[in-house]
This record gives sequence, C-alpha cells and structure tokens, in this order.
Amino acid sequence: MAVSRSASAGAAKARKRPVRAPSRFVPPAEAVKIGDLSGFLGYSLKRAQLRIFEDFIGCVAPLQLTPAQFSVLMLVEANPGRNQTEIASTLGILRPNFVALLDELESRDLCVRSRSSNDRRSHILRLTEKGRAVLSRARKLIETRHEARLRELLGNENCDHLLAMLTRIAQEF
Amino acid sequence: MAVSRSASAGAAKARKRPVRAPSRFVPPAEAVKIGDLSGFLGYSLKRAQLRIFEDFIGCVAPLQLTPAQFSVLMLVEANPGRNQTEIASTLGILRPNFVALLDELESRDLCVRSRSSNDRRSHILRLTEKGRAVLSRARKLIETRHEARLRELLGNENCDHLLAMLTRIAQEF
Repeated sequence: MAVSRSASAGAAKARKRPVRAPSRFVPPAEAVKIGDLSGFLGYSLKRAQLRIFEDFIGCVAPLQLTPAQFSVLMLVEANPGRNQTEIASTLGILRPNFVALLDELESRDLCVRSRSSNDRRSHILRLTEKGRAVLSRARKLIETRHEARLRELLGNENCDHLLAMLTRIAQEF
Repeated sequence: MAVSRSASAGAAKARKRPVRAPSRFVPPAEAVKIGDLSGFLGYSLKRAQLRIFEDFIGCVAPLQLTPAQFSVLMLVEANPGRNQTEIASTLGILRPNFVALLDELESRDLCVRSRSSNDRRSHILRLTEKGRAVLSRARKLIETRHEARLRELLGNENCDHLLAMLTRIAQEF
C-alpha cells in the first residue's frame, strides 16, 4: 500500500518537475524485501529489542536513563553490599563497559562505590538517596507508560507468555 | 540448590585451609537476586537476544559470520541492485557501522559495491559467487543447528507465537 502510494506520488511530481540530467534521476522508492530473514528468531528478537529500548529511552527521557543504567540501579537496590564484579557478571556487562557505566552513575550522584572491608580490591555498590528516588520515578514511568502500552498492544496473557518464553531462552537455551 | 552446594563446599574447604588474614576472606558466593527486573520485558528481551546471538555465532563459527553480517547477506541476496543506504536503513544499522561491515564483507570477497549508473553517489550491492555459497551454508547451519534447537526447546507452536509477537512489537509498538 505505502509503496504504491509513494510510487504514484513520485510519478505525479515527476510530470511537474523540469527534466533533470539522467545522473540525478532517483527512481521511486520501493520497500526493500525482508524475505526469509523475518522467519529467523534472532533477527526478530533484535528488531523487537531495538524498538523496545528506543521506547524505553523515550519514556524515561526526563530522567536520562538507558536500559543498562536502569538495570544496574535495580540490581544494586535489590542487592545492597554486593560488589561491582558480581553485579556486572549477573547482568552480562563486560568490565570496561561496566566501569564507564558506573562512572556515569556516580558522577550523577545516583550510586557510590566503596572499598569492601573484607577485600580491599573489591568495590561495594550502593544507591544514594537521589539514586533511590530516581529509580523509583523511573519504575513508575516505565510501568505506566512503557510496559502498560506493551500490554495493551499484545494483551496481558500474551505478554506473560512472551516473558516466560524469553526467560526460558535466556536460562535454558 | 547450587547456592547451598557451593556454600557448604566452601565451608568444608575453609576448615582444611590455613587461616588467612581477614582482608583475604571471601564469603561463599550467593547468587545476586534479579528481583523485579525479571518482570520487565526489555530486560528479558535483551537477555534472550544475547543468548541467541551467542549461540548463532557458535553455530556458524566455521564461516565466521556475525548475526548482522548474515542479515546483510540475506537482504542483499533478496534485493539485488539496491543501494547501501536502502539496505542499511531497512536493517536499522547506522551508516559508520554499516560501512565497516561492508568493508569486512568485501575484503572477504562475499559482497561487492559498485557505483550506480543512475546515481554515481550511490553504491549498489550484490553478492559474489562465494558470498552466495557462504550464505547458503550459513542458512543450513542456522536452520539445522540453531533454529531447530530453539524449536525443540519451546515447541513449534510457541516458537511461531513468539515470532508473531516480536514482529508485532517491531512493527506496531
């Protein structure tokens, strides 16, 4: 549908336009065929994940949090006193990326690192008061705007089924 | 289960070990709690996607293809004569990343860029004979090893349902 609309609109415009040199001629856009690629689960997962992350970032825009930063704040809140290696490996975030992420959270006064009294080489993480407040606001925004709209699109039962299948892939595949 | 096993194993070892300075004491590892994070669809999608990509890369290891490279080869094969901007934007890959990806595919003689005769600023993409052969082998490996195992884990009906929901999120959310 969209393709034929834009193609005929292009043809109508072309009749009114002055003739251009052949090297400047751009044929009417036709959608690129996704073909068999759409049947591969990895491809569909990645496209859905990109869309969900994009919407997530938009929903928490007032708080300027990425999905990864949100996950770290959630995990640090649920696991006070754990060190940064444990939090990073639980989330599957590589060390250099995790250090950069913590630097950012710490510079914004959302999270603090302190030396462990048991092992001076290890850094214990905890949220600041501001970190807990920002996380609480982020959760509300995500639950009421992002997740609620997803549940509206797919339906509650489908959403639960989707979540169960994704968890199964992450844990058992 | 794993937690209590490793905790008691740790305790047994500790009894046999010489006493260490308190600063070296590492308490028995206890799993970090994922908590409410597991209920967020974005988090579960990302974890499943990471696991699926990891398995994908392992399955096509003999051919050394990433999921993104595979998608580009699939799309170029299904859309001969389209230019690199169209292929990149269809896949949602940013221009600098896409150029690097094409450089790699071209250096391995899987894909060639040529100037469009209609618009000399634009690059038309096509697969080489080797590119088509590698793609065909990759598809077989992915279908028989990767996708088949996923379908075994979730069941055919669930897999189709999952694919439909992911496509809906990518297109309609």
